[in-house]
Amino acid sequence: MRFLFRRLLLAGVGGLLTASAASAQTPADFKTDSINIRRIYDEALLRGQSYEHLRYLCTRIGARLSGSPQAEQAVQWGKQTMETMGFDRVYLQEVMVPHWVRGKAEKAGIKSKKLKNVPKINLCALGGSVGTSGRPVQAGVVEVRSWDELARLSDAQVRGKFVFFNRPFDDKLIEPGAAYGGAVDQRGRGAIEAAKRGAVGALVRSMTSSRDDFPHTGAMRYDEQVPKVPAAALSTNAADWLSQALKTDPGLEFSLEMDCQTLPEVKSYNVIGEIKGSKRPDEIIVVGGHLDSWDLGQGAHDDGTGCVQSMEALRLLLASGLRPERTVRAVLFMNEENGVRGGQKYAELAKAAGEKHLAAIESDGGGFTPRGFGIEAKSAATVARVQQWAPLLRPYHSDKIGPGHGGTDIGPLRDQATALIGYDGDSQRYFDLHHTAADTFDKVHRRELELGGASMAALVYLLSKYGL
Amino acid sequence: MRFLFRRLLLAGVGGLLTASAASAQTPADFKTDSINIRRIYDEALLRGQSYEHLRYLCTRIGARLSGSPQAEQAVQWGKQTMETMGFDRVYLQEVMVPHWVRGKAEKAGIKSKKLKNVPKINLCALGGSVGTSGRPVQAGVVEVRSWDELARLSDAQVRGKFVFFNRPFDDKLIEPGAAYGGAVDQRGRGAIEAAKRGAVGALVRSMTSSRDDFPHTGAMRYDEQVPKVPAAALSTNAADWLSQALKTDPGLEFSLEMDCQTLPEVKSYNVIGEIKGSKRPDEIIVVGGHLDSWDLGQGAHDDGTGCVQSMEALRLLLASGLRPERTVRAVLFMNEENGVRGGQKYAELAKAAGEKHLAAIESDGGGFTPRGFGIEAKSAATVARVQQWAPLLRPYHSDKIGPGHGGTDIGPLRDQATALIGYDGDSQRYFDLHHTAADTFDKVHRRELELGGASMAALVYLLSKYGL
Repeated sequence: MRFLFRRLLLAGVGGLLTASAASAQTPADFKTDSINIRRIYDEALLRGQSYEHLRYLCTRIGARLSGSPQAEQAVQWGKQTMETMGFDRVYLQEVMVPHWVRGKAEKAGIKSKKLKNVPKINLCALGGSVGTSGRPVQAGVVEVRSWDELARLSDAQVRGKFVFFNRPFDDKLIEPGAAYGGAVDQRGRGAIEAAKRGAVGALVRSMTSSRDDFPHTGAMRYDEQVPKVPAAALSTNAADWLSQALKTDPGLEFSLEMDCQTLPEVKSYNVIGEIKGSKRPDEIIVVGGHLDSWDLGQGAHDDGTGCVQSMEALRLLLASGLRPERTVRAVLFMNEENGVRGGQKYAELAKAAGEKHLAAIESDGGGFTPRGFGIEAKSAATVARVQQWAPLLRPYHSDKIGPGHGGTDIGPLRDQATALIGYDGDSQRYFDLHHTAADTFDKVHRRELELGGASMAALVYLLSKYGL
Repeated sequence: MRFLFRRLLLAGVGGLLTASAASAQTPADFKTDSINIRRIYDEALLRGQSYEHLRYLCTRIGARLSGSPQAEQAVQWGKQTMETMGFDRVYLQEVMVPHWVRGKAEKAGIKSKKLKNVPKINLCALGGSVGTSGRPVQAGVVEVRSWDELARLSDAQVRGKFVFFNRPFDDKLIEPGAAYGGAVDQRGRGAIEAAKRGAVGALVRSMTSSRDDFPHTGAMRYDEQVPKVPAAALSTNAADWLSQALKTDPGLEFSLEMDCQTLPEVKSYNVIGEIKGSKRPDEIIVVGGHLDSWDLGQGAHDDGTGCVQSMEALRLLLASGLRPERTVRAVLFMNEENGVRGGQKYAELAKAAGEKHLAAIESDGGGFTPRGFGIEAKSAATVARVQQWAPLLRPYHSDKIGPGHGGTDIGPLRDQATALIGYDGDSQRYFDLHHTAADTFDKVHRRELELGGASMAALVYLLSKYGL
């Protein structure tokens, strides 16, 4: 999950209730729908395929950053996997993507006459960062926790130093995603703001509330008007240590060596599987996740789970004998993490083709126990309409439905789709793993994953039957 | 969690709506309560102590079956820990408990001329089982999946054999606890029913839907009218292998050696911390978990988490400046796993003292992300009354409130308390760990645990303010 520009978009509560072209739901429908949704969950829990597909993607292909050979393997895997699922059509959608590589492992060190027992400083380059041109950059460190704090420092305090952005997650927030939203500006803008003040690099506290040794990578930006300085994420343990160390020796020097670089763009693909709607084939429902992942770990919860759940949502409908009335597409988007090129391309081609998108659902918050769905829609009536289905999802604890964030890949469809819908699962563990070497297959629970795919299938079933 | 007699008790929906002595709640109250509950969660998320207490209990004391030296250490730890928390009173409640010991590691083997590559058979004695008197028991195996299937076998098919009870969890059930309820009769009654038919022992499939190498222990029973035969749990992988092996070689022989025995009963204790109610000290609210655990693993989710959350619930109230109006007690019950002696003793002494219990809350389903509460009450109005507080718990995803199971330790209070309330968290991972060597501290997530304790504290706050 990229989350870089994540906003909690409230559905336009002040908007007019618009007339809906959607069909009405009767008590008899409710009974039929209950039975059909139960069939979807039975299929998922007894014969679900998400978990084994994810095992392959994570352990046989592994990390798959845009432009990497593994990303290309993942494209072929996605296509071949969907071709076994009996969909009407499986196809690729070409898109040019950035190609950033980490290169050799990063090196960090501390030079200080006052500090003893300096631990290993666990860090990693942020995605998109420049490297250090084959030699370490060594400089003093100045710690800040806010942009204001940086602004108040004199040029002499910043120039020639590393700026260490060390604002932690706000632990009292119930949703870790909200805590991420309150800290990730440091990762996104840190290198720009540091360089504007003459700093030689940016060190950023990892985006997590856990205290451990895993550095969390993730996208950062440059401004073409400002020198590009290297940017790295420190594990929270390393960040806590450095903060203390600076109290003991404010004059310590930090050395950083990184081999990363941005290579020419590469041709890649979104992977799409489609079931043609039996009654209204011109109305399209997308369900997707992103196929690319950061280069650390295996891209399990971010976002292998969303990919396998999306393919599975369509398979579950067919296996349950519920051929959809509207057209449904599973879309494995390429390049969510560092460009959103796949999401942009999908929306662009859909617009050019004059396609009508009813809804787009994205699963990109991890494959944990379902809780419900968050909805972005222009009309509050659209949100209310989906909320009416909550009783059907209540037996599966997937009934928390309300205004919320759709997803980064489906974001470009915002003006073309009636609703963008984010799959919402338990999120407490997600940022322990997010963008780290710990995001591996073994962290995913089979039943949690399959329940999530079933919840998405159930919503697709209802959307395809009733519209919005 | 013992669960042996677990039933989902529907609150007496047919009962009369009884007049309530409870206070009314105004809109101004709602605002005050929202603020106070937010303070409880802030305290838990910023300065919560559950996780560090659990670390000590699990990693410094470890497994603590009734009668063991570790159970005694846990009693002292519980008392000392609560004595640091500023409660009005901390005391022990004496109770005699069973003392079963596993002894040397169990040994199992397969004798067959047809089978090659026999794997290690992972198994463990069920709690309470007799041993094999210092030598292996070797016999053929007959597999059944139901009592009916056993009944249909001829005496010749059963006599002198091991009966292998291999009915798996029903994976399509959404709640793993329900799947457990549908399988655990095999563990409880297997040895009795096998011995009635002349079998030499019972082999029981482990109580989990996961497929792995961990055998799951747990309580089993004997009937004094029936010979006591040894009973062991096979890991699900071992059970699946054995089932296949019996198809290849129905004549294979299984050998089992177990060193376990039941020793004389031992004096032990419930540990109780109390805050006297400021307005109605005669009305008591209990919040508890069980201090004993099975001898494998560290008793982390079962039920170290319930213990630390219960103590923490009281501490959170004090630390948030919310001294309760009614008396609240944190109770660490002894001997839930193999006797429920602690729970029985607590209820017996409460009755003898003429105490009035308003409610008893138990956390014994693991320390996972909160979902809500399940309520056992004679009156449906009692359930409805608690449900009215759901909007206050909604921001914390702890608002799923309805009829449900209270808890094994608080069960004996059924006739004395207005409501028994079970803390309900996400349950998908619980039976992966339950009663195994894998139930260790590292499986517990800090924020999930602290959120659970806060949810319990919030409910105690409301109960102590408004009554039932």
